[in-house]
Amino acid sequence: MFDPFSEIDKRAINTIRVVACDMIDSANSGHPGAPMGCAPMAHVLFSRFFKCNPTNSKWINRDRFVLSNGHGCTLQYVINHLLGYKITLNDLKNFRQYLSITPGHPERGVTDGIEVTTGPLGQGFSNAVGLAIAEAHLASIYNRPGIELFNNYTYTIVGDGCLQEGVSSEAASMAGHFKLGKLIALYDANNIQIDGEIRVQFTEDVCARFKAYGWQVLKVDDGDSDLDAIANAIEEAKKELSKPTLIYVRTTIGYGSKNQGTPKAHGNPLKTEEIANVKQLFNLDPTKTFDIPKDVRAFYDKLTRKGVNYEKEWNSLFDKYSIQYPEEAKEIRRRLRGDLVKGWEKLLPRYTPADKPMATRKLSECVLNNICDALPEFIGGSADLTGSNLTRWTNAKDFQATGSGIGDYSGRYFHYGVREHGMAAVMNGMAAYGCGLIPFGSTFLNFINYASGAVRLSSLSKHQVVYIMTHDSIGVGEDGPTHQPIETFAALRAQPNLNVIRPADGNEVSAAYYQALTSKETPSVLCLTRQNVPHLKGSSIENALKGGYILQDEPNPKVILAGTGSEVSLCVEAAELLKKDNIPARVVSLPCLSLFDSQGKSYCNKVLPKGIPILSVEAASTFGWAKYAHMSVGIDSFGMSASAKKIFEHFGLVPEAIAKKAKLLISKFPKMLF
Amino acid sequence: MFDPFSEIDKRAINTIRVVACDMIDSANSGHPGAPMGCAPMAHVLFSRFFKCNPTNSKWINRDRFVLSNGHGCTLQYVINHLLGYKITLNDLKNFRQYLSITPGHPERGVTDGIEVTTGPLGQGFSNAVGLAIAEAHLASIYNRPGIELFNNYTYTIVGDGCLQEGVSSEAASMAGHFKLGKLIALYDANNIQIDGEIRVQFTEDVCARFKAYGWQVLKVDDGDSDLDAIANAIEEAKKELSKPTLIYVRTTIGYGSKNQGTPKAHGNPLKTEEIANVKQLFNLDPTKTFDIPKDVRAFYDKLTRKGVNYEKEWNSLFDKYSIQYPEEAKEIRRRLRGDLVKGWEKLLPRYTPADKPMATRKLSECVLNNICDALPEFIGGSADLTGSNLTRWTNAKDFQATGSGIGDYSGRYFHYGVREHGMAAVMNGMAAYGCGLIPFGSTFLNFINYASGAVRLSSLSKHQVVYIMTHDSIGVGEDGPTHQPIETFAALRAQPNLNVIRPADGNEVSAAYYQALTSKETPSVLCLTRQNVPHLKGSSIENALKGGYILQDEPNPKVILAGTGSEVSLCVEAAELLKKDNIPARVVSLPCLSLFDSQGKSYCNKVLPKGIPILSVEAASTFGWAKYAHMSVGIDSFGMSASAKKIFEHFGLVPEAIAKKAKLLISKFPKMLF
Repeated sequence: MFDPFSEIDKRAINTIRVVACDMIDSANSGHPGAPMGCAPMAHVLFSRFFKCNPTNSKWINRDRFVLSNGHGCTLQYVINHLLGYKITLNDLKNFRQYLSITPGHPERGVTDGIEVTTGPLGQGFSNAVGLAIAEAHLASIYNRPGIELFNNYTYTIVGDGCLQEGVSSEAASMAGHFKLGKLIALYDANNIQIDGEIRVQFTEDVCARFKAYGWQVLKVDDGDSDLDAIANAIEEAKKELSKPTLIYVRTTIGYGSKNQGTPKAHGNPLKTEEIANVKQLFNLDPTKTFDIPKDVRAFYDKLTRKGVNYEKEWNSLFDKYSIQYPEEAKEIRRRLRGDLVKGWEKLLPRYTPADKPMATRKLSECVLNNICDALPEFIGGSADLTGSNLTRWTNAKDFQATGSGIGDYSGRYFHYGVREHGMAAVMNGMAAYGCGLIPFGSTFLNFINYASGAVRLSSLSKHQVVYIMTHDSIGVGEDGPTHQPIETFAALRAQPNLNVIRPADGNEVSAAYYQALTSKETPSVLCLTRQNVPHLKGSSIENALKGGYILQDEPNPKVILAGTGSEVSLCVEAAELLKKDNIPARVVSLPCLSLFDSQGKSYCNKVLPKGIPILSVEAASTFGWAKYAHMSVGIDSFGMSASAKKIFEHFGLVPEAIAKKAKLLISKFPKMLF
Repeated sequence: MFDPFSEIDKRAINTIRVVACDMIDSANSGHPGAPMGCAPMAHVLFSRFFKCNPTNSKWINRDRFVLSNGHGCTLQYVINHLLGYKITLNDLKNFRQYLSITPGHPERGVTDGIEVTTGPLGQGFSNAVGLAIAEAHLASIYNRPGIELFNNYTYTIVGDGCLQEGVSSEAASMAGHFKLGKLIALYDANNIQIDGEIRVQFTEDVCARFKAYGWQVLKVDDGDSDLDAIANAIEEAKKELSKPTLIYVRTTIGYGSKNQGTPKAHGNPLKTEEIANVKQLFNLDPTKTFDIPKDVRAFYDKLTRKGVNYEKEWNSLFDKYSIQYPEEAKEIRRRLRGDLVKGWEKLLPRYTPADKPMATRKLSECVLNNICDALPEFIGGSADLTGSNLTRWTNAKDFQATGSGIGDYSGRYFHYGVREHGMAAVMNGMAAYGCGLIPFGSTFLNFINYASGAVRLSSLSKHQVVYIMTHDSIGVGEDGPTHQPIETFAALRAQPNLNVIRPADGNEVSAAYYQALTSKETPSVLCLTRQNVPHLKGSSIENALKGGYILQDEPNPKVILAGTGSEVSLCVEAAELLKKDNIPARVVSLPCLSLFDSQGKSYCNKVLPKGIPILSVEAASTFGWAKYAHMSVGIDSFGMSASAKKIFEHFGLVPEAIAKKAKLLISKFPKMLF
């Protein structure tokens, strides 16, 4: 049972509300509506239920909190300041200022105590599903009778906007399917959105929808002041361990301000004078800004001390565990450090041209079969394309609700369903949990665009997640243009902090995995073929890890053919044709442009020297290739439905056509530069 | 009441099933599971309810059909062949072959009678919502007592995959909100997905979820053979005019084949021998392929004739209407031709440098205010950012369910809710309806990535839709990197058949709208600033319509500064600084690169001649600029939360830094090319 509420709770809540307003006023920018409306539920949660150690925000068994309506971040900044995280009063004063640690929306890695980056609506909620999955998984693997090392709850506050987004629908359906009992979402139901009352656009029955997903749904009629009702609901939610819970909390947006309950309260800073009025209304000193009354400070200080103790107790528990289960404890320590098992990279297969041609998706399967047993932190699956993506390794066990009879929480293989966006957002959440988890997800490359919103946040948040994307070109063949990526490489390569890796053969596939599994702060997209490719002379894991390298060369090459993925072998064949015509050609493989760029100019100039005409060859949009090449063979229209062979011919992606284009380029070079 | 079912119906259904299998066998590629499972519901629909004229697939009041599970397209190809659309038996035999009109997934514009391109799951269902919106809207505007010109139904068949996708959740919520009574979805509930039985990933209660959205939900227990139950459900669905209807039809995937009811039935072609067995089972001639029994042919021929009559009757109705309502009839005719109102373009505002600086989103609002009353076919709204996107013109009336009290179906302004993907997919559907409708949608540019799946289909399907995307750069300021596009321009520019237009000032905004509204087969993305920009000397609508042009020039320029959008004015200032240092500089504005490219080499070389160093300036990823420029000022990392001014400074996007970079470029040119 939670401690009873008293006046100090009210004061704390109102303090949070007005300091949030002070921040927004000081920045003259921000969203007062949500923090003023959500302060009660947040205070109840953090003062009565939430287990964390603010002095060590990385303690692994902390409860997780995600403010999915990230525009309300002042709420979280103020509370985290009060709780004792590394956010000073000065940081609050610098809200939304240049280089401050209190940016306009919560950013993982920027502000202490922020678990995930939110703001783009629906992402935070979906991340929370991933966080809860991670807890269920680790608990299932490592907990032992009487010793629950992993048993934290995941809480998220979500607004109407979050729940309108398809990504949250997908994630909610997953959470219900997986019966994530330790996931609790507080729905800030304030009836208001930017365009007006929700009746103009959102008249569905959200509670019934969540019940349909398999959630428990609870209701709080007065979320502005009925603290007991909020606390009772959270308590009830915590008890239901076989279902996630949505708590519908009826609130008033901008509570206490003159615009309360209207769309104006959402994103218009309150003027200084009005904040003074609000303070007066709340019996707080209207003449002071950024004022934390002593009793409120003292109240929260107690929570800090409580938090320190939570971790202390856990550490004792872990000591006990270490004695009883030394191997497991060692493994946990390794994972907490983020170290991969020593020597794992030796499991990566290597190939010679004598090995038989295979699709790179198949070669990816070989890698997974080799490494997955050794790397228990590498977990993932497919968005209902397992048999095509070839992502299920031989010994995989399904992650399913324990007791479902078709897997359990210790399983590491995920059937995400046809939910690409939800998959990606959930992966971000799993990665954010920590303990070394490296999630992967898979679909056809073309459908990564369904997930773009979350893929961007993988990069921005520096999540180590791996997108295993197969069927990466017109090589898809008969499925046609709806399934053939064209713009996809360019779209991904333009995104900062993303490894876009398109391996040409077996060694390069191994390199792709090495890169993905060792890039601790960068997500990776592996682009893999449906069709077979040969193993190339000159390829090696080490070469491929430079992102680009000379695969085959001739003395004094007259042209360079630079390709990626399945087109590298076409370049090799084209070079042979050119050789017959006494045109020496170099073949360069460029599996990862960003990695190649990062080798520095001198290396890049050695591989692709200025002064020699360079022809890029990729079965995709030529957009972006002018940086590396003087001319491009590619596809600047949509694909077509036919056999892959026919389509490659149609677009001139065959050795003969490439050789011809190379000759054209040679004839125009260097005149074409002027 | 529908005609009673008899043996011929069974024969027709089985014929459809096996001819679909013949097609897939002949292509040795395709998905037999869905056509075999869905043939009964499709036959019942098309034989008893569906009103179309197969001899004129463009008849405006035809019922609309969308096969959302597009991989089942053989079903639709066979039925359309039987119905008398322009698909020959030979076309069926050429399924998935090079240049055939029967591609691997249904493509609008390729196959007669295909309304929208499907295959990417969830899109077709969402397009159907847009089609139903269009009908409701046009009916509300043009129908008169006793004369219902527009009263068609929209039917869609959807599978489990479609209903798992977030985009369909968003669209379903919208459809419920808008009470689209003439939308009927047949849910092919076969319990099977690629990864296995749906219990591995999809255990929510779909029917309850749709009820929560405000849909009527009906059930058919035996969709394999209980034709009466299917027909009764459709009949009941048609009667409920205040709610869309989901009919849950329990079916067996791959019905009749040995893999029926298993995941293997989904995408594995049946072998010739097995098809023969299936034919035997169905009492069809096992020795024949592509065989349409005469009685089946005759049955469907009757439907063709019935369809011809439907249009005849409608034409008489329209004649009657034309007499009673000549003005409206004229307007309908204009819209059917796809002509815009004559002289509308004169309403586009023009500006001089004397006009006061404004944000291009504000200038967009000015255009909307000027043109929307004159262009009733231009309809749209915002994904809950109306006040920020500035998309609601002065006289706009909301599109809402008639009787809701807050608008009606004749309204043209849409509150899409925070549902970017659903918005885009619904727009595609509205555009597909025809009758000249040009839908627009709006959100912050950065969040177009939530909608990428549907934006791609806008391009592939050649839908004339307009994405009005505001807050197009770090100019967003304090909201921070979660809201600041970086890779977005590159991602969009790499997509074929898309106008990506980033106007620099008022005249260019007018040009952007001109381009968008006259590109009948190309969608447009207008990228608009949050912050003010000046009106530039040298800009004009005519110039901007070339996609790129010399804005300001000097004799013998030593460097060219080429910018887009808000950075063009920075280029102008930088050029002035350079002039002070006796460096003559040309300023080029490039509002739309694809349009610029389409002007031809000679024009492009005049604007951006080789031999003069070119510096591109854009507050976004430099990816892709190497095609046009020798060096780039841009942002190859994520943005930051601060005032826009600070961020522009931080990234060197200020005149001084640009001028400095221009000097650097001059110093390296042309040596850098070798």
